[in-house]
Amino acid sequence: MANTIELEQIKSLLPQWVEESRQLAVQGKVAAYIPELAKSPRDTLGIYIMDTAGGSVAAGDCSFSFTMQSISKVFTLIIALMEHGEAAVFSKVGMEPTGDNFNSMLKLELVAPSRPFNPLINAGAIAVTSLIGGDSPHERSSKILQFFRLLAGNDTLDYDLDVYQSESDTGHLNRSLAYYLKDKGILNDNVEDVLDIYFRHCAVKVTCSDLARMALVLALGGIDPSTGKSIIPRRYVQIAKVFMTTCGMYNASGEFAINVGLPAKSGVSGGILSIVPGRYGIGVVGPALNKKGNSVAGVNLLEKLSGEFEWSLF
Amino acid sequence: MANTIELEQIKSLLPQWVEESRQLAVQGKVAAYIPELAKSPRDTLGIYIMDTAGGSVAAGDCSFSFTMQSISKVFTLIIALMEHGEAAVFSKVGMEPTGDNFNSMLKLELVAPSRPFNPLINAGAIAVTSLIGGDSPHERSSKILQFFRLLAGNDTLDYDLDVYQSESDTGHLNRSLAYYLKDKGILNDNVEDVLDIYFRHCAVKVTCSDLARMALVLALGGIDPSTGKSIIPRRYVQIAKVFMTTCGMYNASGEFAINVGLPAKSGVSGGILSIVPGRYGIGVVGPALNKKGNSVAGVNLLEKLSGEFEWSLF
Amino acid sequence: MANTIELEQIKSLLPQWVEESRQLAVQGKVAAYIPELAKSPRDTLGIYIMDTAGGSVAAGDCSFSFTMQSISKVFTLIIALMEHGEAAVFSKVGMEPTGDNFNSMLKLELVAPSRPFNPLINAGAIAVTSLIGGDSPHERSSKILQFFRLLAGNDTLDYDLDVYQSESDTGHLNRSLAYYLKDKGILNDNVEDVLDIYFRHCAVKVTCSDLARMALVLALGGIDPSTGKSIIPRRYVQIAKVFMTTCGMYNASGEFAINVGLPAKSGVSGGILSIVPGRYGIGVVGPALNKKGNSVAGVNLLEKLSGEFEWSLF
Amino acid sequence: MANTIELEQIKSLLPQWVEESRQLAVQGKVAAYIPELAKSPRDTLGIYIMDTAGGSVAAGDCSFSFTMQSISKVFTLIIALMEHGEAAVFSKVGMEPTGDNFNSMLKLELVAPSRPFNPLINAGAIAVTSLIGGDSPHERSSKILQFFRLLAGNDTLDYDLDVYQSESDTGHLNRSLAYYLKDKGILNDNVEDVLDIYFRHCAVKVTCSDLARMALVLALGGIDPSTGKSIIPRRYVQIAKVFMTTCGMYNASGEFAINVGLPAKSGVSGGILSIVPGRYGIGVVGPALNKKGNSVAGVNLLEKLSGEFEWSLF
Repeated sequence: MANTIELEQIKSLLPQWVEESRQLAVQGKVAAYIPELAKSPRDTLGIYIMDTAGGSVAAGDCSFSFTMQSISKVFTLIIALMEHGEAAVFSKVGMEPTGDNFNSMLKLELVAPSRPFNPLINAGAIAVTSLIGGDSPHERSSKILQFFRLLAGNDTLDYDLDVYQSESDTGHLNRSLAYYLKDKGILNDNVEDVLDIYFRHCAVKVTCSDLARMALVLALGGIDPSTGKSIIPRRYVQIAKVFMTTCGMYNASGEFAINVGLPAKSGVSGGILSIVPGRYGIGVVGPALNKKGNSVAGVNLLEKLSGEFEWSLF
Repeated sequence: MANTIELEQIKSLLPQWVEESRQLAVQGKVAAYIPELAKSPRDTLGIYIMDTAGGSVAAGDCSFSFTMQSISKVFTLIIALMEHGEAAVFSKVGMEPTGDNFNSMLKLELVAPSRPFNPLINAGAIAVTSLIGGDSPHERSSKILQFFRLLAGNDTLDYDLDVYQSESDTGHLNRSLAYYLKDKGILNDNVEDVLDIYFRHCAVKVTCSDLARMALVLALGGIDPSTGKSIIPRRYVQIAKVFMTTCGMYNASGEFAINVGLPAKSGVSGGILSIVPGRYGIGVVGPALNKKGNSVAGVNLLEKLSGEFEWSLF
Repeated sequence: MANTIELEQIKSLLPQWVEESRQLAVQGKVAAYIPELAKSPRDTLGIYIMDTAGGSVAAGDCSFSFTMQSISKVFTLIIALMEHGEAAVFSKVGMEPTGDNFNSMLKLELVAPSRPFNPLINAGAIAVTSLIGGDSPHERSSKILQFFRLLAGNDTLDYDLDVYQSESDTGHLNRSLAYYLKDKGILNDNVEDVLDIYFRHCAVKVTCSDLARMALVLALGGIDPSTGKSIIPRRYVQIAKVFMTTCGMYNASGEFAINVGLPAKSGVSGGILSIVPGRYGIGVVGPALNKKGNSVAGVNLLEKLSGEFEWSLF
Repeated sequence: MANTIELEQIKSLLPQWVEESRQLAVQGKVAAYIPELAKSPRDTLGIYIMDTAGGSVAAGDCSFSFTMQSISKVFTLIIALMEHGEAAVFSKVGMEPTGDNFNSMLKLELVAPSRPFNPLINAGAIAVTSLIGGDSPHERSSKILQFFRLLAGNDTLDYDLDVYQSESDTGHLNRSLAYYLKDKGILNDNVEDVLDIYFRHCAVKVTCSDLARMALVLALGGIDPSTGKSIIPRRYVQIAKVFMTTCGMYNASGEFAINVGLPAKSGVSGGILSIVPGRYGIGVVGPALNKKGNSVAGVNLLEKLSGEFEWSLF
């Protein structure tokens, strides 16, 4: 009930806030490290919010589609946990924020054993992806895509093959990380197979409403809002929320926790998936990134919402 | 009301849980880097819980007194924020977890500018301490001690002068950090003055009930439970809770967030201050530390409590 | 003339010195990171010395054959210099010792641009190998092998295909380095092609006399002792000698310069190529390695020789 | 005899070469980290060469006086070796180049034990200085100054007290290094005492002819050219030459070895001491430094000399 009233308030405020936040996009840069990403228009900004009672509100460029990139790491972690349990997953990847760049190799060399510090940096996400089983790389990728479709409630979700190809062609730093992990016994798989699966799940194309729906499942503690059935064990949702809070926004996660205070995960495409536990699933996109790699306008918009409606967990 | 029932349950379960967790102390080691600390008995374990309705429960070695050590950093941060505001404080210290040891110099050299990553690592805490003003080192230390007394509701709180002296005599790594910060312009103060203030607030002697009372103020969003008055702005309590969650337990903070899920801060003396926001302030002590520097038995006990009563923020 | 007298002295002393140095082999370990290498007998020790007047002396296990490993890096550097000149080569690789392990990635990430610090660490040697041209990987490998045969005066020099295969199958850390360099634009080649060429030249099988003959060409400033013709420009021999002196013995190069004082390059197979400029070419093998990766007995034997006959450059 | 002819050639060429090299000074910057140093005129360039037969040649600004800075480290190492022998000295400091900046703390934290990598980086030089004994800091400093006077054949050599004071007031990074070493047990002394001695020997004021005379003693293998007596054991001269070659020019030592090929040590004041073993002692000064901290014009001038007269050791 209270939720419904708040949603009405959001509806009335959001269009203007989107326009205000959009002005900040000029401060950021669209990611250029994958050639395909560089084509996104800089001043795009869209947001979609779903509440647990079935309501929703959209504002800005909600028809804009983009690839999930690092946002997918939250859900591949969940798949790996559902397949293997905590002990197996955390034997391959740690639980700690790093303070380093998402593609850094420093701690792999400096801290023995060479286990990636957490599942949301690239090294950790590659290690987690390698745990997701199947008879072939194709089958393993399919399993991931099917799960993403289920979470988004959208059977048409698919890869952006141009981005996938672009990333596969130029992803040499990820190859370097993967071979390092292979050398250290963290990754037992064929490296190119794992990278293919990894590049594919990063290249799943979504809109803000897809992200909001995926977030809503987390906001509901793992319950599918369409069927009321649990599709993710609550414990794994909890683990995902911790990682989103401590390292979901690259090495600006601490700042985001202070200024927004919500579990969230950003991607280099400018997307952000965030949740207000028990209440909302949120999808945002704004391709212009700040120096830490997060959407300038998107972070600003979430800060306004969280501040106004006191959503912070803290 | 629900709180009261839960407190009764805790009362009945806690004594046995303390004995169970105490068994784990043999896995840990009492800190030896400050000679005075090494004298603590390894199998000590005490806990004190205060609820927001005025109830409380104690178990184990609650008369054991120990120094606050790093736990004091939460409150010197709050004093600095109250004196200077967010902008000034965060120009000297960052908001991000590091993944490095609490006394590491790596990021100071590797990441420009050489601003400590957060206020809970030693470099950051020293930078924060230097912001706390006063006409003399003595006056600055007094101000801190008075605030700690107010929070603990205990006018007799004072320094353990043996620990203070021991730390002052052997704290060369902290001297090294402080001179590094001085060189980089983060610290403008006289280095030995700042270190004296820093070593003093680390050496304030408390028991579990003192910690629980200090925690209770945070659990109440900054309200003094005796007077009902706000003694810390809610926003600064929020900031403190974020840092306690993302980097309060050294580089096991991520693991603690997953397994316990409460804002907490540990000290090398074996103390842990933790809060259940809106509900409880908790003080724990168990001097035997694990490899990451946290109380083995204390963490285990908090994990049982949080698991049983579903206290996790996540 | 003086040389001839000295060579006679060496002949009389060497057999006993070899036996004395051989005793030290128990302090070392045979390299295990390439499975094939682990098969070498630990107490093997051989040495072959050629003088510029055509004389020679051998002692110990001179029929033992082993792979060149890192020793080959000296000569691929020379080939690259002969093909492209100093400016081109040193745009891809630096001139400085690192103090890090031979396979470290730290400085690649920490020091911009990500140019390997020198041509004798793995990253640098891979970058140098990529500069050696040809119509196909096979042709590029052949060119290297032919040059090695010319230097050794031995047309039968060839790959140890078991070692090559073993290294190719397990060389994931080198793959990681190569993809890192590819990402940074240091390496423009196909990574697997370069690695194939690299693994092959590391796997060229030699005996001590082959190494001594290769060293003799360097000792003669680039002159082929058989024909009297210059086969390496003197300037490139000079550059090779500098790198052998400052970083030829991994991160024990400084210690070797102090205790032996000769340009030298060691390999993980236990081989060492060393020169007394203008006078001797020396090949040594002793598979038991110290912690820094150099032959325990081989280093000891060179130290005795250099000390007794005052060969140090310094 | 040959030496005499060469010296005549140098005399005729040097004035023009000095003017040519002086043009390069605009590419460099005078060191600013010590306020006093920043006052040096940028286009100063002087050189003084002494040969082992008693001849000498000077060109450029040879009356310009400057502080020895890091050049002094070569001679404090020699004093420590003469007092304690190799084993004691190398238990406190290593023998390896680092590739890091001269004031870096990285390897102290990353490589156990925290022994400075070599005696020519700041951490290592401070450790070496602490080994030089005496009843008081004053006496220890006097001993060093007396030795410098003996080497320079100049009884008036003294401290530049302005530079000493400036360095003492602002040398917080050296304080940080020293306290780090104190914490790790490398330095057992009182930190401020050691730093006082260190800052003093860095602040000894010389001209090019002083440096040339000091260098000449090394070129003679430790023989005092005035008395013909050995004042430094040959073995310690050898050790000094190795360090000058592998790490005398900061992290451009490898490049200098390739392009010049002489043992040398530079200082942040723009001085360079270099030797042609058995033949010349050389003192150079040019305060405009390149990015690696070496005199732009001075290095260029040495490169011309070494190239023309084939002085390279390699």
